[in-house]
Amino acid sequence: MSAHSAGWTAPASTVLRVPAGGLAAVDPDATPGYDGGKDHGAVSLASGLAALSPLQERLFAQAATGTATGRVLLVLQAMDSAGKGGIVRHVVGGVDPQGVALAAFKAPTAEEREHDFLWRVQKRVPAPGMIGVFDRSHYEDVLIARVRALAPAEEIERRYGAIVDFEQRLADEGTRIVKVMLHISRDEQKDRLMERLDRPDKHWKYNPGDVDERLLWDQYMAAYDTVFARTSTDAAPWHVIPANRKWYARLAVQELLLGALEDIDPQWPVADYDVEAEKKRLAAS
Amino acid sequence: MSAHSAGWTAPASTVLRVPAGGLAAVDPDATPGYDGGKDHGAVSLASGLAALSPLQERLFAQAATGTATGRVLLVLQAMDSAGKGGIVRHVVGGVDPQGVALAAFKAPTAEEREHDFLWRVQKRVPAPGMIGVFDRSHYEDVLIARVRALAPAEEIERRYGAIVDFEQRLADEGTRIVKVMLHISRDEQKDRLMERLDRPDKHWKYNPGDVDERLLWDQYMAAYDTVFARTSTDAAPWHVIPANRKWYARLAVQELLLGALEDIDPQWPVADYDVEAEKKRLAAS
Repeated sequence: MSAHSAGWTAPASTVLRVPAGGLAAVDPDATPGYDGGKDHGAVSLASGLAALSPLQERLFAQAATGTATGRVLLVLQAMDSAGKGGIVRHVVGGVDPQGVALAAFKAPTAEEREHDFLWRVQKRVPAPGMIGVFDRSHYEDVLIARVRALAPAEEIERRYGAIVDFEQRLADEGTRIVKVMLHISRDEQKDRLMERLDRPDKHWKYNPGDVDERLLWDQYMAAYDTVFARTSTDAAPWHVIPANRKWYARLAVQELLLGALEDIDPQWPVADYDVEAEKKRLAAS
Repeated sequence: MSAHSAGWTAPASTVLRVPAGGLAAVDPDATPGYDGGKDHGAVSLASGLAALSPLQERLFAQAATGTATGRVLLVLQAMDSAGKGGIVRHVVGGVDPQGVALAAFKAPTAEEREHDFLWRVQKRVPAPGMIGVFDRSHYEDVLIARVRALAPAEEIERRYGAIVDFEQRLADEGTRIVKVMLHISRDEQKDRLMERLDRPDKHWKYNPGDVDERLLWDQYMAAYDTVFARTSTDAAPWHVIPANRKWYARLAVQELLLGALEDIDPQWPVADYDVEAEKKRLAAS
């Protein structure tokens, strides 16, 4: 676990790794590895951001000066209302926007459907120095695509291997991949969707199709478990984040991001010009 | 001025409009229209953000539901070290990242140079519901391009008209354009560049070319004045923000953004489904 991470009793990257038992083995109400409680969680989130910001800036600085090409890709997957938007806003939103590349993947367009499923994804992978965030991702092509039979079974099968190869290539070029599934319970989703229906300022976030997908809950959970079994690799492991408690889910994703950046360990670039000579030039200008 | 804007004595969009006298008529140390001082400025910035966030969310919600297509484009231009990054971080960075599209324009690539100067810019204009931010922009093509004679004089002349036409088209499709030049003094720039040389963690932000451009200060100021004279239109007026005081510049840009959003006046979309029927479906699911 990272040095600043008061409240964490075990490394998030270990305790949140998808268990052998799959989703059934993860309690959405739990707060694994963190013993701080909600109030302390807010303090931890703020201090985590204070730790994340300089790491992000060093990562960006390295790429800007061409001294290193490390980058991070955060992949966010979840059932509707599980809190992806809150992660984007409260975890990713805390760092300098110029160092963040956010890609939200919706249902593919007609043009996108004419290409392999990874075509549109490849175009949005983070450049050196960036923290890329996928709000939904290529995993939709083996989740809703499987549950809704949007592609033939053998094509779905092919995709698991294609994803593993794709992510390995990203890792090989220096991308630290953090994949998280925000795991809420079926009851929690009902409460959150009901709140959207109860509040006129939330009506726009609700879609009748949300209930259609909800009715396929068990099929989705099974599709996620297959995803974990087929695509959780050393280069790009899956994490399952209990997400009934929003404060915990945000803190956990932040901790995983911090761990990724600390692994990269970006450093301030050394000047490739003569600092003293430049001071004289500037003073005379 | 906007309703929340305690401290503002006059509308920012009026007092910051580029004056007839051009840059020479603007004191970079001034804080026009705001009588709150630096400490109160921090309070105003926080309360301004609290006002900006729901406006941004409504703008986004309208587009997400297809009920309106309004959008905002903030164009940031300035001499080196004038504070564009701080605006991105502290003004734009406060709103939900999923509603912001940031485009940083560097020196054009070989491919980009094979196209008209607006080719790469057109690709980055904000989609409906978004706040687009240009960190540098097509104006570089009539600023450094003019000062450094990177294009023939008649081509530079052509570009002013092309820019006016381009921005008019954006406005016609519902884009509210906010163009700002962050105006620092030559002495202030020297201090800020010297700080970059004095601090190893800032060395990466310094480039010997910065002094080369600095030596052409007067030519740049003249090029800016020509830009203002040729491209400040009703559809896309220019504002000059005194920027020696960072706190003021941030507050002023925030106030201009707020004004733009208040002009658009986005509303929460009305549900296009039967809310009560959906509550029953959800309850039964």
